[in-house]
Amino acid sequence: MSLIVQKFGGTSVKDAERIQNVARIVTDTYKAGNDVVVVVSAQGDTTDDLIEKANEINPDASKRERDMLLAAGEQISIALLAMAIEKMGCPVVSLLGWQAGFLTDSNHSAARIKRIDTGRLTKELDKKKIVVVAGFQGLNRFDDVSTLGRGGSDTSAVAIAAAMHAKCCQIYTDVDGVYTADPRKVPGAKKLEEITYDEMLELATLGAQVLHNRSVEMAKKYNVDLEVLSSLERVPGTKVKEAVKVEQMLIKGVAKDNDVARISIIGVPDEPGIAFKIFSQLAGEKINVDIILQSVGRNNTKDIAFTVPQSQVKQAVEALKTNPTVMHASSITHDETVSKVSIVGAGMETHPGVAAKMFEALFDANINIQMISTSEIKISVLIAQEDADRAVSAVHSKFFG
Amino acid sequence: MSLIVQKFGGTSVKDAERIQNVARIVTDTYKAGNDVVVVVSAQGDTTDDLIEKANEINPDASKRERDMLLAAGEQISIALLAMAIEKMGCPVVSLLGWQAGFLTDSNHSAARIKRIDTGRLTKELDKKKIVVVAGFQGLNRFDDVSTLGRGGSDTSAVAIAAAMHAKCCQIYTDVDGVYTADPRKVPGAKKLEEITYDEMLELATLGAQVLHNRSVEMAKKYNVDLEVLSSLERVPGTKVKEAVKVEQMLIKGVAKDNDVARISIIGVPDEPGIAFKIFSQLAGEKINVDIILQSVGRNNTKDIAFTVPQSQVKQAVEALKTNPTVMHASSITHDETVSKVSIVGAGMETHPGVAAKMFEALFDANINIQMISTSEIKISVLIAQEDADRAVSAVHSKFFG
Repeated sequence: MSLIVQKFGGTSVKDAERIQNVARIVTDTYKAGNDVVVVVSAQGDTTDDLIEKANEINPDASKRERDMLLAAGEQISIALLAMAIEKMGCPVVSLLGWQAGFLTDSNHSAARIKRIDTGRLTKELDKKKIVVVAGFQGLNRFDDVSTLGRGGSDTSAVAIAAAMHAKCCQIYTDVDGVYTADPRKVPGAKKLEEITYDEMLELATLGAQVLHNRSVEMAKKYNVDLEVLSSLERVPGTKVKEAVKVEQMLIKGVAKDNDVARISIIGVPDEPGIAFKIFSQLAGEKINVDIILQSVGRNNTKDIAFTVPQSQVKQAVEALKTNPTVMHASSITHDETVSKVSIVGAGMETHPGVAAKMFEALFDANINIQMISTSEIKISVLIAQEDADRAVSAVHSKFFG
Repeated sequence: MSLIVQKFGGTSVKDAERIQNVARIVTDTYKAGNDVVVVVSAQGDTTDDLIEKANEINPDASKRERDMLLAAGEQISIALLAMAIEKMGCPVVSLLGWQAGFLTDSNHSAARIKRIDTGRLTKELDKKKIVVVAGFQGLNRFDDVSTLGRGGSDTSAVAIAAAMHAKCCQIYTDVDGVYTADPRKVPGAKKLEEITYDEMLELATLGAQVLHNRSVEMAKKYNVDLEVLSSLERVPGTKVKEAVKVEQMLIKGVAKDNDVARISIIGVPDEPGIAFKIFSQLAGEKINVDIILQSVGRNNTKDIAFTVPQSQVKQAVEALKTNPTVMHASSITHDETVSKVSIVGAGMETHPGVAAKMFEALFDANINIQMISTSEIKISVLIAQEDADRAVSAVHSKFFG
């Protein structure tokens, strides 16, 4: 008997019809002889509605009470899904995060799972029940309800799969897999049969938000086989695992990320420790710095440019203005009309032609590259945001066309 | 430092404005130097909305899953009220039923409280926090969420007041107290300053639904001082306690109950044990029989008439048709166009004139009495439903006019 963990997001359970659809997928899996644990998110707009109610009363409400409020969302969806499964004649029980044994730290609204006490889950599975678990939520050591923050339900599902040594963890969503580019925008985008954890992590980071990073990191750490597939079409999805078949294509995808801004510090004195002084300050402010470019010195000064998420630009610039090193710079500028376009693929570091091919595609499309960043499995370029969609198409056709 | 338990129903917390109003009452009580535990129900229509969602998916859903679903309603309201109290600058924490220590039996949807583990409540009060508790819900010994059924939040509040030896338990509602008759229908209705538990129990049973019986029974058992008052007007309400001031009026109120139907069994053989055979059968079917009238025997037969709630008429008649004793009766009839009008007042048994005065009022109004039932603190008459409002007015003016 093998255990399959299935996770369904908010759109997959948004109304009675969708819930019945999910119940069919779950009961089919159960009837095929599997143990099944189902993790669900809150229905469609429930979370947004609850946040709106909270903001009307107190926009500065404590995170503790916000977690209490939001956790009601999954409570509703697990009960409704369990009812739909009951109607299909299969034994089922719904469990809240704490009933399923999710113990977290006390970082309300972005709690980390510390462990899962699997006693209740095991007991219910032993009774041959389908177990429907509220994703996104747990309990801290003070017995207070906590939530896991963005991507929380994916993380809940992977955590259960890891703790229960499940055969696999299926993440059902409204797309039927991971594509080489956004299929809504790039006509030739191809669905990938398999992808490695690292590639998936890079693609998630780069704005191809199919799975949240936390869940992929956890899957990699505990070697949980993931599959991304559609809750509406019964077709094979994309498998995420440690290693993929060697005949898989070198480049896995082209992604675009608009949530990026470039900050440039022009004319800082060219002396040792400048980068350290700037970036340690930003790290202290918990600002995520991505691509960094440092110019060759000239007239005893340097230029330093780097990217941050758009939401952190203001904070970063304010902080830098107080930095003794930066105070001697001639100017600080920032540009939010940029976009990061990247290609991802394990093994590209042994194929030097890949970067050149990407740059050629951009050159052919007459797109100017502002910054370049490379890693073992990724090449990113910073370009003007107005060119981004064109850049994705051009690069995609170069590799997959 | 004395503890006050305050309970607010669904209409008192139906929107942001009402929640802020409740928060003001609560924080005023806290700032006056009291410890405060607040029990709240689900917001306005939340419970109905959730039931509708459930019925759309599975009208025969298990009670276990229904309880899981409904309990989300109070979770939302406690979090929102806590946020409103935070905004007013008072320390506060919201607790779900299980966090507040409510342990119940496993009778889902109508669970009984077995005990309250007051550890967490005490700890939070010791920290000088206002504690907002989800009414209506608890946890059974299998760690499953249970709900207490109708009037559950009142019961939750009284149970906390009893377990924590509170100074009093204030039940806030949309009326400002208990009246001698329904003030919307009887112009001369007077608000009572005080009433005994027993009188309140009779009035609740008789359709003057201000407090649910279970909560009043519990308050009587543990001698919890109750007060019924308005969440919208800051005026004294009605106090419910063991004994009231002697100068209080003899009759506490006139009530009407339309949820009643009369079943008549005509011409049963006049032999010993007939009443036993009929009413033990109905008790076995969990049918609530109220007024019973047995005629004097005639031609070796008797007539037996009694009242049941309207929802149980059909079940009662079906059951009686299979009863060997009743099979020999000449007919079974039932009448749903009746109403029960009652006067309630402790001490009336020592004032024989009370019943006569009530009957005189009905006679003057030309209203025919079908059945009569009396107890130590109550006199009820069954009359035609079309006469009910007129009867209440006539009796009310006789005693209070």
